[in-house]
Amino acid sequence: MHILVLGAAGMVGRKLVDRLLRDGRLGPTDITRLTLQDVVAPARPATDIAVEVVTGDAADAAMAARLVASKPDVIFHLAAIVSGEAEADFDKGYRINLDGTRYLIDAIRAVGGGYRPRLVFTSSIAVFGAPFPERIGDEFLSAPLTSYGTQKAIGELLISDYTRKGLFDGISIRLPTICVRPGLPNKAASGFFSNIIREPLAGKEAVLPVSDDVMHWHASPRSAVGFLIHAGTMDTGPIGPRRALSMPGLAATVGEQIAALERVAGRNVTARIRREPDPTIMGIVAGWPRDFVTARALNLGFTTAEKTFDDIIRIHIEDELGGKFVD
Amino acid sequence: MHILVLGAAGMVGRKLVDRLLRDGRLGPTDITRLTLQDVVAPARPATDIAVEVVTGDAADAAMAARLVASKPDVIFHLAAIVSGEAEADFDKGYRINLDGTRYLIDAIRAVGGGYRPRLVFTSSIAVFGAPFPERIGDEFLSAPLTSYGTQKAIGELLISDYTRKGLFDGISIRLPTICVRPGLPNKAASGFFSNIIREPLAGKEAVLPVSDDVMHWHASPRSAVGFLIHAGTMDTGPIGPRRALSMPGLAATVGEQIAALERVAGRNVTARIRREPDPTIMGIVAGWPRDFVTARALNLGFTTAEKTFDDIIRIHIEDELGGKFVD
Repeated sequence: MHILVLGAAGMVGRKLVDRLLRDGRLGPTDITRLTLQDVVAPARPATDIAVEVVTGDAADAAMAARLVASKPDVIFHLAAIVSGEAEADFDKGYRINLDGTRYLIDAIRAVGGGYRPRLVFTSSIAVFGAPFPERIGDEFLSAPLTSYGTQKAIGELLISDYTRKGLFDGISIRLPTICVRPGLPNKAASGFFSNIIREPLAGKEAVLPVSDDVMHWHASPRSAVGFLIHAGTMDTGPIGPRRALSMPGLAATVGEQIAALERVAGRNVTARIRREPDPTIMGIVAGWPRDFVTARALNLGFTTAEKTFDDIIRIHIEDELGGKFVD
Repeated sequence: MHILVLGAAGMVGRKLVDRLLRDGRLGPTDITRLTLQDVVAPARPATDIAVEVVTGDAADAAMAARLVASKPDVIFHLAAIVSGEAEADFDKGYRINLDGTRYLIDAIRAVGGGYRPRLVFTSSIAVFGAPFPERIGDEFLSAPLTSYGTQKAIGELLISDYTRKGLFDGISIRLPTICVRPGLPNKAASGFFSNIIREPLAGKEAVLPVSDDVMHWHASPRSAVGFLIHAGTMDTGPIGPRRALSMPGLAATVGEQIAALERVAGRNVTARIRREPDPTIMGIVAGWPRDFVTARALNLGFTTAEKTFDDIIRIHIEDELGGKFVD
């Protein structure tokens, strides 16, 4: 089986590639070939599997044609610029997040000859915008309040329509906010949800710009990779024509996050969180989803790796910190 | 006031232009200039108002730039190919209905210098796809089952995002199926809803391809023009960021349509309807909306010209047939 990953150098992309190489298979099928694309060079993994690394902008028709010319069986499309950057650079957001997706799907279509790969598109809960019900269900409208969310919602519509037309077998998975996001903060306005866990565990101070009662929808990076793998292997027949699914997650307030951190790592760690309210960030976050009912995804076999926010912190310590943190 | 109408030669476009010329004003403001675009030459109306007729494909960046260069105050964007054609010609549908809309909105944005026109985009109830509740509310998801519906849903998302960014003052109005559609049948699969009224009133036979209990959501051409005028003049402040609105209409079964036709025009007329079930059309129609709760639009002052389906037939006889029909 040949797998193509667009956006392979991103946080989720790297973790997905690690998992694919560790498993050596996707579902029951051995992986024989892996093509990794990103605008920055993806790391070339040490593996027996044939790996091609492609460095370049995905929002380019020629690049898209090149990537699908060898007819990968499964395509994970994770290439995107994040919400903060898409909001700051309107043209770039539309070029990468909308045009890039269109180039890809039109390139797949252009291959022809019965080529009909599985296409997994990473969407986001940013397709939803306030006001919404306390818990967002599977039939709630996409009314994004960011350009990023708009671009993801458009991608979902395209994936569903092209799938309906038999041009590929697509599925869009709306990832919760990934927590704990490892590494350095990126330009996402949601960064603080991870910062307040990751930085204190590393002995560093973290700024909390919102109040403790802000609730949000989280999943661990391990869960995100699990969603992708499931989307890449599942029987798509039962999904029906609505190919966009809100992924399961965990609703937690910032206060609950901090309480979990204290249970897992102690008071010395939580003492490193400095409350510094930022009206701009509070305004942005007020328009974000808080909680979901993800009945369709659960019925279709999507599951999280965590049951509590304590688990999310433990997964971070296990997967990123080698089981240790700075007390 | 300078008004631009894209798709001015279409059925709704022509009726909108007629109304604008009859009124001589849009809301409280005199119309001083009218630019009419369509791919087929729009009729040049006899009027004192300065009218420019532009013939050419709207899905063209240069054309879009030319149309907005003179900074029209209000833009009615009705240019589209219909559902049946967009389904049959995938490329053409995306080119006209999606790319065309993007060229227009990007051309508006490129004018700059504080130019921020009112943009009225005609969307459709085709943005909804089955399964749906008995009555579709304002928070129900767009899950179209046609490429046309997909393209309209994408247009709505773009209009909302560009409006949020202050690039223009946009509003998308989801028209019900227009009934009674005058003139010759077009390629829309919904044609029979009008055919079974229009053709018998003209002394001709009409084919009914579905069963009498099929319910659908209708508005007269007069109502559609009223929605457009209101969308072009209303205070958009109270709309908020969700700039797409399902328009009010009238839910009627085919049986109720025929009963209304009999009340208005008699049995000789309804006898011209020939029942000839078509499984293909029945399948398509099964995925269509039946009834709506359009609370947002009603609260924002959108109103229909008809209270019953009898009114819809009377409006057709009045506006299209000079008050007479073939008994």
